[in-house]
Amino acid sequence: MITQPGKFIVIEGLEGAGKSSAIALVNDLIEQHTGQAPVCTREPGGTPLAEKIRDLVKIGDDSDPLCDEAECLLIYAARAQLIANVIKPALAKGQWVLGDRHNLSSLAYQGGGRGLMPLVTAVSDACLSGFTPDFTLYLDIEPRLGLTRAADRGKLDRIEQQAIDFFERARQTYLQLALQDDTIVVIDASQSMEKVHQDIRHQLMNRLPLLQSKD
Amino acid sequence: MITQPGKFIVIEGLEGAGKSSAIALVNDLIEQHTGQAPVCTREPGGTPLAEKIRDLVKIGDDSDPLCDEAECLLIYAARAQLIANVIKPALAKGQWVLGDRHNLSSLAYQGGGRGLMPLVTAVSDACLSGFTPDFTLYLDIEPRLGLTRAADRGKLDRIEQQAIDFFERARQTYLQLALQDDTIVVIDASQSMEKVHQDIRHQLMNRLPLLQSKD
Ligand SMILES: Nc1ncnc2c1ncn2[C@@H]1O[C@H](COP(=O)(O)OP(=O)(O)O)[C@@H](O)[C@H]1O
Ligand SMILES: Nc1ncnc2c1ncn2[C@@H]1O[C@H](COP(=O)(O)OP(=O)(O)O)[C@@H](O)[C@H]1O
Ligand SMILES: [Mg+2]
Ligand SMILES: [Mg+2]
Repeated sequence: MITQPGKFIVIEGLEGAGKSSAIALVNDLIEQHTGQAPVCTREPGGTPLAEKIRDLVKIGDDSDPLCDEAECLLIYAARAQLIANVIKPALAKGQWVLGDRHNLSSLAYQGGGRGLMPLVTAVSDACLSGFTPDFTLYLDIEPRLGLTRAADRGKLDRIEQQAIDFFERARQTYLQLALQDDTIVVIDASQSMEKVHQDIRHQLMNRLPLLQSKD
Repeated sequence: MITQPGKFIVIEGLEGAGKSSAIALVNDLIEQHTGQAPVCTREPGGTPLAEKIRDLVKIGDDSDPLCDEAECLLIYAARAQLIANVIKPALAKGQWVLGDRHNLSSLAYQGGGRGLMPLVTAVSDACLSGFTPDFTLYLDIEPRLGLTRAADRGKLDRIEQQAIDFFERARQTYLQLALQDDTIVVIDASQSMEKVHQDIRHQLMNRLPLLQSKD
């Protein structure tokens, strides 16, 4: 018996866009569709080593401020580790994978936000060799609204404390890349959670049959 | 008064080539020449954050084996951090910097040894933007001899435990790159320590006047 490879679905968006809440919904929809809960990942992180890298990126060190290039390379190191040891093995076994962020976050945050697009695309091209999600739901939100939601959640981390124009640049990059890629769907995440989830369900249900018929 | 920028001198070579012993000698020669001891760095490492990255690379995790791409990216993250927070600030203040390994190690180990030259050159080009040592002493040694010396020093780490042909490929890459770059000098490190140090002294003394007249 040949196992059909699993699909890799990713939820993207700025801080407080509603990714975590969306994950719970999409997790259930995938389970209903395939009969099996997906493997859930978060980035940066998702393996023991990648979680240690996540801490380096999230916490920072005042005596040794993380430079933009190192931030970018650490995030790709964590991603390489996650792809090699979690995502690819799961897909090969026929399991679906549901990601809280993936490569698009680096293009938006490190590429657009930090202005490091040449480094990001060089590393992304050389390191991922074409590996890419089957379907991405990008939850689009005005940065100020997202950060207000995230702040209600608790103390903001090193990345969440960036200036608002950092997130503006990241958002514009997300939107631009979504326009160029028909595996990325934009959801208006400024709506009520009920309406956002309705849109997500609608988009995903439309896409699922297409994903499977590709094989 | 305009401060003349310092120079960046690097010692390279396989495990057990004799880099640590050479550092002590070159440190003294630089101090005699400039009147001030150089800032000494080691790679990967050399800043609080880069040392944490070094531990991830050196120690490994059996439950989550470090993939080659992640190893490469972690090493470059540590390097970016070291250049931004230690090497460039020191050079700008007129201090000399003496490095125990630098970018050539990645070209040799990750590029030649692991076969990741496309990723290494992509990251190296995009991340270092032409920043390069003023002078490199490459201590050339047959891997088996170097590893025998290193083993006498104590337990071998994750990298030192690679198969001998990994180090053979790294050595060939070192030699090839040295041929193409006249800022790299090859020292025969299989000789007695006395003779090796004599060669290092000779090469460095010849080069020092040229380094300074470049400004
Ligand atoms: N559409 C929405 N309207 C109002 N609040 C929302 C909405 N989506 C999420 N939230 C709330 O905003 C906060 C951040 O959402 P979360 O899912 O953690 O975002 P993310 O994971 O994208 O950072 C949470 O408290 C969540 O309940
Ligand atoms: N030319 C040499 N001949 C014999 N032993 C040497 C020589 N150079 C170094 N050693 C010894 O080999 C070991 C490894 O040298 P070390 O300087 O630590 O190498 P590296 O830093 O390149 O790994 C040390 O015990 C050192 O004293
Ligand atoms: Mg979240
Ligand atoms: Mg040493």
